[in-house]
Amino acid sequence: MDDCGSNFAQWKNQCLAKMDLSKKGSIDEDIQDVVRFINLSENFFTTSSCSGRIILIDGASDCQDVQKQNCSWLFVTHQMCHKCDVVSGLERSQGDAVFKFEPFVLHVQCKQLQDAQLLAVRSTHTLEVPVSHKGQQLVDDHYIDFLVEVANQKMQENLRRIKRFYDSLKSAMHPEKLHSEMPDVAEKKSVYKRRRKRAQERSKAALCQNIKENTSSGESDGLDSGLDLFK
Amino acid sequence: MDDCGSNFAQWKNQCLAKMDLSKKGSIDEDIQDVVRFINLSENFFTTSSCSGRIILIDGASDCQDVQKQNCSWLFVTHQMCHKCDVVSGLERSQGDAVFKFEPFVLHVQCKQLQDAQLLAVRSTHTLEVPVSHKGQQLVDDHYIDFLVEVANQKMQENLRRIKRFYDSLKSAMHPEKLHSEMPDVAEKKSVYKRRRKRAQERSKAALCQNIKENTSSGESDGLDSGLDLFK
Repeated sequence: MDDCGSNFAQWKNQCLAKMDLSKKGSIDEDIQDVVRFINLSENFFTTSSCSGRIILIDGASDCQDVQKQNCSWLFVTHQMCHKCDVVSGLERSQGDAVFKFEPFVLHVQCKQLQDAQLLAVRSTHTLEVPVSHKGQQLVDDHYIDFLVEVANQKMQENLRRIKRFYDSLKSAMHPEKLHSEMPDVAEKKSVYKRRRKRAQERSKAALCQNIKENTSSGESDGLDSGLDLFK
Repeated sequence: MDDCGSNFAQWKNQCLAKMDLSKKGSIDEDIQDVVRFINLSENFFTTSSCSGRIILIDGASDCQDVQKQNCSWLFVTHQMCHKCDVVSGLERSQGDAVFKFEPFVLHVQCKQLQDAQLLAVRSTHTLEVPVSHKGQQLVDDHYIDFLVEVANQKMQENLRRIKRFYDSLKSAMHPEKLHSEMPDVAEKKSVYKRRRKRAQERSKAALCQNIKENTSSGESDGLDSGLDLFK
């Protein structure tokens, strides 16, 4: 990857100049600062992002997997949700509706392997609940109340994790600058340095890649998470 | 990564010689062939795996996220589940029980970046449903019936995907050998060659890394899946 450096800057400029083709057409408010910060670094740029969302998706009743091409969105929010919106969305269900919470997602191109390893994070922070079948509601009103409460708790925790990720990223990428601003950054610096060292050592030996259809497993997978959001 | 080759073989031998420290202590039956095949290649070795499972986890009621350290397993199977097992597990719930389907997971160390890119896959194939709160069941008997049916459908689809992944992996890693065995492998070979070429081109330009807490988003993320399981 000798030509990585020169190609990366050119590739970054091309990608960031493209129009936002997402359904929303803009970056979610709660993740704008993180995206802006990442794209200010010469070692990274973002290709897509979501600040986290609560969605009610109506899928075909004969479909075993919710895919974008064969389902309709009955309701979506990137903030906390209100029960009335979920209920009215569910009333419009004609197939198999699934109530989902999806935490924040960032896809980032990294110049160097150790930068990518530094950023690798995951957790079990999700929700995926069938709530109707062939248009018929499967759960009662009290359960909808509970789901809304759980989804909103997860959304609040998600916002805390975005902030923790952003703080960790800043301390990892600009330790000396933050050191003067933040009294508690000294520990983060040393943690970062240890991880950076491990990441660099590992990158010399081999590349690590998850092969998985889904990362919702609560079990440790033996991989080192560069920025640990889950303490 | 000049010393990648020599280090990798040594590292692989050390890792594969270690005792299996997982709760089960052995490789799941439905994924043994894939794991054995991967470990026969000099470019890969597995560090952990799961063939997919249906689990009922009892978490602390004051906990917003199911984590291994503060929850108990009421029920787990790597095959299809029976309603009676789910019901009896749910009867033992004292906190917030969550019924989950988790598809197959492989963690693989790769010698070369293009090998890792070749193998990157994901999907939205999951289920995570709260079914009790503070030991009280939240859903009725008919809903449990439906969840068991959905989870078993996902497990069947999961087994099909393991086979499809294994077939694709064999055609990708030994195209000439499989060509004589499998009449339909010619197309796979060309698909593989195109992906291999793309992966190699990309690896020269930059490294790609997902930053996400969870990959259950149904939206396209602009990443190239090396082995496409989802056609």
